[in-house]
Amino acid sequence: MEPAPATLDVLAFGHAIVDVLAACDDGFIAAHGLVKGTMVLVDADQSAAIYASMGPGIEMSGGSAANTAAGVASLGGAAAFVGKVADDELGRIFAHDLRAAGVAYTTPPTAADRQGTARSLVLVTPDAERTMNTFLGVAGELSEADVDEGLVATARITYVEGYLVGLPSAEGALRKAMAAAHAAGRQVALSLSDPLWVAHQHEALLGLLPDVDLLLANEGEAVELTGAAGLDAAVEELTRSCPVVAVTRGAAGVLVADGKETTAVPAVPVEAVVDTTGAGDLFAAGFLRGLTAGLPLPDCARLGGLAAAEVISHVGARPQTSLQQLAARAGLLP
Amino acid sequence: MEPAPATLDVLAFGHAIVDVLAACDDGFIAAHGLVKGTMVLVDADQSAAIYASMGPGIEMSGGSAANTAAGVASLGGAAAFVGKVADDELGRIFAHDLRAAGVAYTTPPTAADRQGTARSLVLVTPDAERTMNTFLGVAGELSEADVDEGLVATARITYVEGYLVGLPSAEGALRKAMAAAHAAGRQVALSLSDPLWVAHQHEALLGLLPDVDLLLANEGEAVELTGAAGLDAAVEELTRSCPVVAVTRGAAGVLVADGKETTAVPAVPVEAVVDTTGAGDLFAAGFLRGLTAGLPLPDCARLGGLAAAEVISHVGARPQTSLQQLAARAGLLP
Repeated sequence: MEPAPATLDVLAFGHAIVDVLAACDDGFIAAHGLVKGTMVLVDADQSAAIYASMGPGIEMSGGSAANTAAGVASLGGAAAFVGKVADDELGRIFAHDLRAAGVAYTTPPTAADRQGTARSLVLVTPDAERTMNTFLGVAGELSEADVDEGLVATARITYVEGYLVGLPSAEGALRKAMAAAHAAGRQVALSLSDPLWVAHQHEALLGLLPDVDLLLANEGEAVELTGAAGLDAAVEELTRSCPVVAVTRGAAGVLVADGKETTAVPAVPVEAVVDTTGAGDLFAAGFLRGLTAGLPLPDCARLGGLAAAEVISHVGARPQTSLQQLAARAGLLP
Repeated sequence: MEPAPATLDVLAFGHAIVDVLAACDDGFIAAHGLVKGTMVLVDADQSAAIYASMGPGIEMSGGSAANTAAGVASLGGAAAFVGKVADDELGRIFAHDLRAAGVAYTTPPTAADRQGTARSLVLVTPDAERTMNTFLGVAGELSEADVDEGLVATARITYVEGYLVGLPSAEGALRKAMAAAHAAGRQVALSLSDPLWVAHQHEALLGLLPDVDLLLANEGEAVELTGAAGLDAAVEELTRSCPVVAVTRGAAGVLVADGKETTAVPAVPVEAVVDTTGAGDLFAAGFLRGLTAGLPLPDCARLGGLAAAEVISHVGARPQTSLQQLAARAGLLP
């Protein structure tokens, strides 16, 4: 079926989260039994305990897929986001920041209760690596009722963050959104989000893969999900399920594969890496925007690399300059 | 009377505020009828209207005197703060950040109500200047009941931000704190805060001057308060009321006067001025910390300049590195 003209480039589903970023040393990570570079879910008490021992914070709207949506908008794409906030101060901050970034966001807030809007305590070590402790609050309540199939049908790509996969309530929402996208002749993209999360939600993620058209992962996640001996084998295996696979390797660049051809694209050099929070999210933004703009896969990966390079050059997980202008200067977008 | 040994260097009284910083262009300032570089008080509706049209924000704890207290602590001084937050998310953020910065903060939060914790919408233009729109919320409810005279007696310097002067409820608190400080043989310092505020609260500020031992101001504020023809005349007039006067002049440095001698101290060069939010607050921190460490006045001004230089080199109004280490490297503190 030939889809009707799309009015959205990317419709992103994810946790609506406000990040609380603070600098810390490696000793703090060790003392709290955290694994550097990963995300763990914590409950309200654990969140409060870590917060109490953290240094002064900076609050910025985050959430993996929401960051990606903000990146798509900064690249001139039409983006929308679906995710749950509470009717509280952090929820209003999240909604404001996303809309101010040019992303359509209409999920109604849930009544403010004991849970509140999700927050992630993001600990940034001197090596610019981030370690995240996320209290989901009402974000974990995303459900089928939040999926508007008509809205899904208007988006070229329905994008899902892996952090949603394996959560009982969200699982139904994802299935419904993915089915609606395919029924409308659209594509579904999935990001694997985090190697620890992949380890925990292994079966749930593998179960989704046959319905995923575009898979985004980093090297650790790809190897973890497939159990392959190395990256090349992992990419080969993933392309058997997913028509397009992009795997990021930090400063080593990106591998992009479509089952016929695998291309290595170098990373965009960064003068000083300040904070890697959002690197994967912004790679996804560039990659998806490239696809919706009709770019060849290697140029999609280049656009992803350019967006990631901007976001790791400053504190925070969303672009602080027009990515569209950067992309135009690099000759990747008009 | 010889005071008992002090356990605090600086006890700061001010508005407990969370800043919401966003970049904007000069057109935004003009379109909202704002005066660049100044602070205005707005009501909840005005705050909401400006917020709705602002770009994505970064939330960071602020408040002029609270920033100063954080600076004093970063310089190795013993600092405490008195100011009102509500029992809400922003209030908890403010309290956490201040305590995590090493500042004692024991003012009990007021019950969360429609007002909530104060927030200031800080618009940063490309010239690094900040324009502030502050909704005071419960911060405006500071009153005599919040002043612990025993605590005041333990502080070498009781420091008051000018933004409190002229507010009916706070006025009693200030009078009580200043009287307690002098009764204990301590000193009282006042910052003039903002030229527009000085214009509005002219009489109230002049009424306080006879009870102020240390006056901090910028050039515009000093001229505005005195109505003098120029800076030199303004400084001369202010030293007739206040034993010590320090006037900042941005990149032109500082004038410090004690009624006998006026010394010009050059500014600390800054490679790239990013955001001037907090410049005056951190000058005050260095100046007061220098006084409590027994430094001569010109070195107090140098320490103030060093603290201000750090804070204008990044986004946000509080130090992001140890000012004590910077001061030690500059030979100003051990």
